[in-house]
Amino acid sequence: MTNKTIHLNADIGESFGPWQMGADELIMPHIDWANVACGFHASDPLTMSTTVKLAKKHGVRIGAHPAYPDLVGFGRRHMACKPEEITALVQYQVGALQAIAQGHGGSVHYVKPHGALYNDMLSDGATFDAVCKAIKALQNNRAHALPLMIMATPDNDAWQSRAEEFGVQLLFEGFADRAYDDDGRIRSRRYDDAVYGADEDIVEQARRFSCGDSIISVGGFPLDIKIDSLCVHGDSPNAISTIKKLRELLTDSGCANA
Amino acid sequence: MTNKTIHLNADIGESFGPWQMGADELIMPHIDWANVACGFHASDPLTMSTTVKLAKKHGVRIGAHPAYPDLVGFGRRHMACKPEEITALVQYQVGALQAIAQGHGGSVHYVKPHGALYNDMLSDGATFDAVCKAIKALQNNRAHALPLMIMATPDNDAWQSRAEEFGVQLLFEGFADRAYDDDGRIRSRRYDDAVYGADEDIVEQARRFSCGDSIISVGGFPLDIKIDSLCVHGDSPNAISTIKKLRELLTDSGCANA
Amino acid sequence: MTNKTIHLNADIGESFGPWQMGADELIMPHIDWANVACGFHASDPLTMSTTVKLAKKHGVRIGAHPAYPDLVGFGRRHMACKPEEITALVQYQVGALQAIAQGHGGSVHYVKPHGALYNDMLSDGATFDAVCKAIKALQNNRAHALPLMIMATPDNDAWQSRAEEFGVQLLFEGFADRAYDDDGRIRSRRYDDAVYGADEDIVEQARRFSCGDSIISVGGFPLDIKIDSLCVHGDSPNAISTIKKLRELLTDSGCANA
Amino acid sequence: MTNKTIHLNADIGESFGPWQMGADELIMPHIDWANVACGFHASDPLTMSTTVKLAKKHGVRIGAHPAYPDLVGFGRRHMACKPEEITALVQYQVGALQAIAQGHGGSVHYVKPHGALYNDMLSDGATFDAVCKAIKALQNNRAHALPLMIMATPDNDAWQSRAEEFGVQLLFEGFADRAYDDDGRIRSRRYDDAVYGADEDIVEQARRFSCGDSIISVGGFPLDIKIDSLCVHGDSPNAISTIKKLRELLTDSGCANA
Repeated sequence: MTNKTIHLNADIGESFGPWQMGADELIMPHIDWANVACGFHASDPLTMSTTVKLAKKHGVRIGAHPAYPDLVGFGRRHMACKPEEITALVQYQVGALQAIAQGHGGSVHYVKPHGALYNDMLSDGATFDAVCKAIKALQNNRAHALPLMIMATPDNDAWQSRAEEFGVQLLFEGFADRAYDDDGRIRSRRYDDAVYGADEDIVEQARRFSCGDSIISVGGFPLDIKIDSLCVHGDSPNAISTIKKLRELLTDSGCANA
Repeated sequence: MTNKTIHLNADIGESFGPWQMGADELIMPHIDWANVACGFHASDPLTMSTTVKLAKKHGVRIGAHPAYPDLVGFGRRHMACKPEEITALVQYQVGALQAIAQGHGGSVHYVKPHGALYNDMLSDGATFDAVCKAIKALQNNRAHALPLMIMATPDNDAWQSRAEEFGVQLLFEGFADRAYDDDGRIRSRRYDDAVYGADEDIVEQARRFSCGDSIISVGGFPLDIKIDSLCVHGDSPNAISTIKKLRELLTDSGCANA
Repeated sequence: MTNKTIHLNADIGESFGPWQMGADELIMPHIDWANVACGFHASDPLTMSTTVKLAKKHGVRIGAHPAYPDLVGFGRRHMACKPEEITALVQYQVGALQAIAQGHGGSVHYVKPHGALYNDMLSDGATFDAVCKAIKALQNNRAHALPLMIMATPDNDAWQSRAEEFGVQLLFEGFADRAYDDDGRIRSRRYDDAVYGADEDIVEQARRFSCGDSIISVGGFPLDIKIDSLCVHGDSPNAISTIKKLRELLTDSGCANA
Repeated sequence: MTNKTIHLNADIGESFGPWQMGADELIMPHIDWANVACGFHASDPLTMSTTVKLAKKHGVRIGAHPAYPDLVGFGRRHMACKPEEITALVQYQVGALQAIAQGHGGSVHYVKPHGALYNDMLSDGATFDAVCKAIKALQNNRAHALPLMIMATPDNDAWQSRAEEFGVQLLFEGFADRAYDDDGRIRSRRYDDAVYGADEDIVEQARRFSCGDSIISVGGFPLDIKIDSLCVHGDSPNAISTIKKLRELLTDSGCANA
């Protein structure tokens, strides 16, 4: 059992100039944390301002969602950036959002890298360190820590140790609607069974995360993965209805031995 | 006479990716304030980091140099951006630089818009107000004010009043190497006599600014223009030698009745 | 009466990377000419290829829709580009589309500048000439002419004369759903009565264009404006239904004295 | 011996907006083929026009130098683009240059991908095929073939066979100033001995290429590499003097048994 609060986070503010993306207005009322695009894979200064305002209206905390500089590829493509460039581009994007948040009386509460940068952190130590260095620098002169959100795996502790060398605190996120491989990583979308279609599967996996139970890998193995937050998506037809079910569950998780 | 200290400022950090521009290493030792490009008309996160480091090495204060989003045109072309977009893009760029400065233990000390945005501020009140709104928001949570640098004209007081409605403090800059029209604005580069070629003319105009004397317009009229800073350029062949003369002058201005 | 065929044209292929815009699949079956975005205000090489393929499937002729380099502003903002830059950027964009069209066995049939560039052509002669120069160059080595589409006004003949100095043929387009000012230009969207809401007004104005009758300005004056093509839009809720009515009308215009 | 003509090629037109790069004016008189940047890693429409004009003045043939969409990284970073995107972006860039060349009475004579795209072609068959598909499409309606230039290796024949499936003709280029690994690929710049510093080494390797002799790998092995063109660079201090020596050599190669 667990009495830990699991927060719902979602990628938000991914419109760009005249192009709309996502259903921010619909999702915002149901989440705790909004990962706000910072202009490198999506968004622009005015869109960021609008997004921060919307988050504030719903009492949602904002995190920065920095990415590789690749609008046309939406930051989803690996780019062979040098570590010092990664450090600088994370600082740049987080700082830009921080200034805009400040204009609405808010602040950036955490950093969650986007797309290929998010994935590269866990597959390439130099990338992970470069992001940590950026956050270490961003924490200068801040009253509060600026945690880094990464994908929860069975290796949370090892990553936390590595982050602590930079004085960086981690937040771990899980995915209720994604299958996990036997090694504890989320299953690639290349496979047909990568994404759960049925709400009951999504809710059951969320319940397991929430109660601190093991989740079950595609190969049938139990995986012990601790999370701080569940990532939800707003792009499927019945996304909002699913998010509401998750919200309900997290409020009253009904853990077996609670 | 005046005992006011006039600071030298220069546009710095205008390289972009693999492209070099300017002679930052040579100029930095001779200036007080560096206007650092923020990625919209020039520079990129890594270049900004390198630039801030260089400024720190020479004890030079940094200011943000935000611009319209126009790399290929170097921010020199008017773009019909809406006021709320201008506010957001100034916040974005200043915040990005602030984060990178913080990583080097520094901070942004002032804001000087670049190119067409700099000019549009004085020709279009809505643009001026939009920039002031950005700075007002950026001053939230700051221990110190974040002054806005604009072109000094005989109308400094009127601009200062307008800025004060937003709680914004102004810095006024003059140009030692540029002729002034009879109305007190710098003369357009379209005219052959817009830029002084001879050091003695440049030094004489600097001396007048520095001593609080009137400068002389192209039409021979005295102009009473007060400045806080002189803008110097590093792109002409003997630029550094001229900057050294100005530096010497400002240290010991030899004002007539000092 | 008139027996001239009026073609329907629409702006098409304005998605960008991951961002969708417009209802290309729905509109394409009902138009004759597709103005295809070329990557400067919208679209990207892959989107252009998809768009050209869709046009080909429906037997729709493609035109190039070049714009100022301003993705975030969707090419709608005036940018003070130099004439020689305008010439080069029109050549660049038309050439890019031509190559992609060729890959699908097609070709670019005309050029219609987009947004602010479209408007600037008629308000600034240097811009008009710069676009004509680009087309003159693009006509080298082509078997067929490459006409330039501009807004039809009562001054069509004057513009045609000017274009002929560059060997450029013009196509004139009208708007069935837009009010016209008394001077024969379309009414700015700043005014509430700029866009017709009712299908009967749209169809009536189209009928007048089609029959060669005068249309009526907002001030009640008859305007003699000849057109080759009507521009239709796919972004309003019942756009397709309106387009179908226009298509029907143009097939059998029911001109009074036909 | 050989009586084959070896052409000198160089990367040209890599300025961008206000940023200058390279010494195009100095190199152009000494080369045969200019690889002209097309706006994705460097250059812009106006710079392309200026570059084509300069090439024409010196009777230099132009080739298109397309790249991944990465200005800040100068196209040197691998980007995980999908094959159909690579095909489209090569068509786009070549078409854009073709239109601009046409405006100066010229034409694009070959295609040489740039940077990471150049390297990826030889390490990833799908990338090679995607480029060939683009060229196949670009050859539609052309009077002449549009050869693809790739790095010469001992495997030229295998690559030529693969290209022929798309009806694409290859040009092979060698590097006089670069060391070759034992497997016949140029040595990575990570190694100190990757670039020849002494003119006599450069000239000797060029002589071997030119005479059809084997060149010698870093490990001392003879490598049989046939080339059509030598790539020269203008960015080292005595670049022009070296290029002149290579030009002289290629005019009168002094092959042993000529």
